Amino acid sequence: MTPTPTVDLNCDLGESFGAWTLGHDAALMPYLTSANIACGFHAGDPAVMRQTVRLALQHGVAIGVHPGLPDLAGFGRRNMDISADEAFEMTVYQLGALGAVARAEGGHLHHLKPHGALYNMAATNAALAQAIAEAVYKVQPELVLYGLAGSELTKAGERLGLRTAHEVFADRTYQANGTLTPRRQPDALITSTEAAIAQVLRMVQGGWVRTQQGPEIAIKADTVCLHGDGAHVLEFAQQLSQALRDAGVKLARPAFAK
Amino acid sequence: MTPTPTVDLNCDLGESFGAWTLGHDAALMPYLTSANIACGFHAGDPAVMRQTVRLALQHGVAIGVHPGLPDLAGFGRRNMDISADEAFEMTVYQLGALGAVARAEGGHLHHLKPHGALYNMAATNAALAQAIAEAVYKVQPELVLYGLAGSELTKAGERLGLRTAHEVFADRTYQANGTLTPRRQPDALITSTEAAIAQVLRMVQGGWVRTQQGPEIAIKADTVCLHGDGAHVLEFAQQLSQALRDAGVKLARPAFAK
Amino acid sequence: MTPTPTVDLNCDLGESFGAWTLGHDAALMPYLTSANIACGFHAGDPAVMRQTVRLALQHGVAIGVHPGLPDLAGFGRRNMDISADEAFEMTVYQLGALGAVARAEGGHLHHLKPHGALYNMAATNAALAQAIAEAVYKVQPELVLYGLAGSELTKAGERLGLRTAHEVFADRTYQANGTLTPRRQPDALITSTEAAIAQVLRMVQGGWVRTQQGPEIAIKADTVCLHGDGAHVLEFAQQLSQALRDAGVKLARPAFAK
Amino acid sequence: MTPTPTVDLNCDLGESFGAWTLGHDAALMPYLTSANIACGFHAGDPAVMRQTVRLALQHGVAIGVHPGLPDLAGFGRRNMDISADEAFEMTVYQLGALGAVARAEGGHLHHLKPHGALYNMAATNAALAQAIAEAVYKVQPELVLYGLAGSELTKAGERLGLRTAHEVFADRTYQANGTLTPRRQPDALITSTEAAIAQVLRMVQGGWVRTQQGPEIAIKADTVCLHGDGAHVLEFAQQLSQALRDAGVKLARPAFAK
Repeated sequence: MTPTPTVDLNCDLGESFGAWTLGHDAALMPYLTSANIACGFHAGDPAVMRQTVRLALQHGVAIGVHPGLPDLAGFGRRNMDISADEAFEMTVYQLGALGAVARAEGGHLHHLKPHGALYNMAATNAALAQAIAEAVYKVQPELVLYGLAGSELTKAGERLGLRTAHEVFADRTYQANGTLTPRRQPDALITSTEAAIAQVLRMVQGGWVRTQQGPEIAIKADTVCLHGDGAHVLEFAQQLSQALRDAGVKLARPAFAK
Repeated sequence: MTPTPTVDLNCDLGESFGAWTLGHDAALMPYLTSANIACGFHAGDPAVMRQTVRLALQHGVAIGVHPGLPDLAGFGRRNMDISADEAFEMTVYQLGALGAVARAEGGHLHHLKPHGALYNMAATNAALAQAIAEAVYKVQPELVLYGLAGSELTKAGERLGLRTAHEVFADRTYQANGTLTPRRQPDALITSTEAAIAQVLRMVQGGWVRTQQGPEIAIKADTVCLHGDGAHVLEFAQQLSQALRDAGVKLARPAFAK
Repeated sequence: MTPTPTVDLNCDLGESFGAWTLGHDAALMPYLTSANIACGFHAGDPAVMRQTVRLALQHGVAIGVHPGLPDLAGFGRRNMDISADEAFEMTVYQLGALGAVARAEGGHLHHLKPHGALYNMAATNAALAQAIAEAVYKVQPELVLYGLAGSELTKAGERLGLRTAHEVFADRTYQANGTLTPRRQPDALITSTEAAIAQVLRMVQGGWVRTQQGPEIAIKADTVCLHGDGAHVLEFAQQLSQALRDAGVKLARPAFAK
Repeated sequence: MTPTPTVDLNCDLGESFGAWTLGHDAALMPYLTSANIACGFHAGDPAVMRQTVRLALQHGVAIGVHPGLPDLAGFGRRNMDISADEAFEMTVYQLGALGAVARAEGGHLHHLKPHGALYNMAATNAALAQAIAEAVYKVQPELVLYGLAGSELTKAGERLGLRTAHEVFADRTYQANGTLTPRRQPDALITSTEAAIAQVLRMVQGGWVRTQQGPEIAIKADTVCLHGDGAHVLEFAQQLSQALRDAGVKLARPAFAK
């Protein structure tokens, strides 16, 4: 018997800070199966982290650590020339901070996904990827490590025996080598909702994606990233989750045989 | 049989930050039984925290969380008008961060002692004291809560059933109501090494302290605070620990019947 | 001939930070005669400061420095136990930073008004008030110092020979001693638009205000503060400015005989 | 008549922060002709800036702005992927902040030299160099712009008509293309005091420098950078300034025909 195809819908949440509110956390929760919660370095503060953990617990959404670069003004989106040791240390620190917030609310951590520039650097820089994976391994090895599908980060996690989730994007185009088309290129984004949903279905059900260079390539799609700050994110989340369910795909956090 | 009198010697450590070095951490370690390690809000950064945890593990010194106010420029020494919720949240966050650093190095947390203005406010403000004690209780209730002897903080910890350590000071004078003489008063400090050591011995062995107003009062002395940034701290640490041992006092982290 | 009564309408602007947007700066500008622009300590960053200065220049709105406490997470609203020297230094720093931003855009500074907790502390703490006034005096003595009407801050400015603007509030009630009713009291706020506008007209035209204790007291009303983050601020700004113009009051930045 | 050869000795100062002290500012001042003062982004705080400005004024040392990246934990030494607009804005902000501190102490600014990673990026990235030069040009065009000799930064300043000072290093080796040998290479540093002094004399008096690849190349040496945090900096500063005077070189801040 073929197992029911399953996919996780994740989103970056808890990105408010102090007096500043960002995102649609409460409204998005019903469509998500996992949440990546900012930990104070690029966004989030201890109060926001607590509120976001509570929301996730209310909705049964998996709680994930979302460590970022120490760059509040840049929202963690500017590459910084950090060392592997620094990547390890800032990941350990943020993992622990959110873990304690979760425990104080009666919850526990499920996964870790780096944010922004840290995510992008860890996708291609093997030393940073290794450092982040080791941080998870040494502090809480039962966590799932989310990374760009087929990236250095998922490879590093797999080398250490971590459970990994290969992440795909609904609204980004792919290149023949499996990487995302860089944002600065005109064809980087998929703007049609229908095309974005179709791409997700192909990746989840078929295990392949069309590339900008023509050929179709294999891709592993354990989790789909929703961009929480887009204007139409709520509508898109609703349509995507409906389309997946209509296609017989189960929405659930990554599950693993014990 | 009378049990051997025992006392803990603690010191604030890990107070470097980035390119800036502060304190004599490595040199002090041999004289200490517990270390309060800064967690990034008033001092310390993830790299400094890691180095300090390693030092503590090498020396068998108990690892303590030392949460502070979010005031790097003021070193956490300026009172801030924070709410009880904020005190709870910043304590949870910093507790978790250091806990993960300790775990990554193969260690674990032993206690928590608030830093600077947070310590002082929690000594007299019952709501803040309660919030800090609850943070410990909800995240890691086996930790020992260090607070000023007889303060609101130790009371709050005891109400929640936490193990508490009553802290005394070698070089500060006391008032008849059990509080420290405020630093702005001329007789706040004990500058003679002999007098400071004698005060510690009276507190640890006799359970009492002389006050500036004359009468002797009872005081509980589970742990003695050394000030790590003083010029003569190394010499004083050596002399105090020698004097305590000569007097038959055992130096050890606070121990509790299981 | 009686001079035309004149009043300034000011508002705190430029309170976004990095990826976070706050306030209705562009929409409010047409109703304002002066803007207090955050300088990076409690809100604002160099990019936001530049955009806000540009907006003010486009609308002919006076550019004011709005220095705050170094407390981004608390939005500068939490009292901090800073020294007078620290108040002086942080005011000088922020004044200079915004002044350079204004100059780079072809503008220049008009006034300075402390933000949040710094404003409140300077209203009653003479040493902090003196420090802030001296910062203006030593760096750019032609600036107008905005402070709570009749406060320590305006007094300190006047002692130094600075031009000062006494600030009043439309939506706050006053006490017999001239101070605002503390926010924690139930009668602190005026929620009726009509009552708020009537209070402003009495203060501007009549020079008096009704107090919660009964008696009317004299008050100097050079400038009225609008709260930029309220839900109805745009509507209220429109109604208040219309009511003032209908009553023959001229809206203009504080003017001084040369 | 040949003019007396003249060179400026500059050093990064004011790099303490809050409770943390760094450098030997007071001891170095007698050997310097210009000081680059940190402005709060990578080091320095408003109190440290004020103290450093006072020291410079006491010693008749030229006061320079030393803007850095917003990276306190990394001391501004980690490259960050900032935009040209961000470089412009953070330079304007820090320039203004230090300018106000200087004015409050009765002094004024003389030059601007970017710090650390911002200096290095501006040496080779024409867009960042242009942004920094424009910040000086738009806020205070009379300032001297210090940059690596022959770099994109000095070129950008010269295009805008700014006065520039070409900076050379005593203890770094040069490559045939005029750039410094990267620090990661084993021959990057000159460790012999005699060799370092000889290199400075050749650059200042002869206008050339020996390169690691063999050939001698022309170099403009308006100002020599001393590294303030080295162990032997005081001794080296003394020896270098003595050697320059013995060779008939005048030590003075960069002077320009009016």
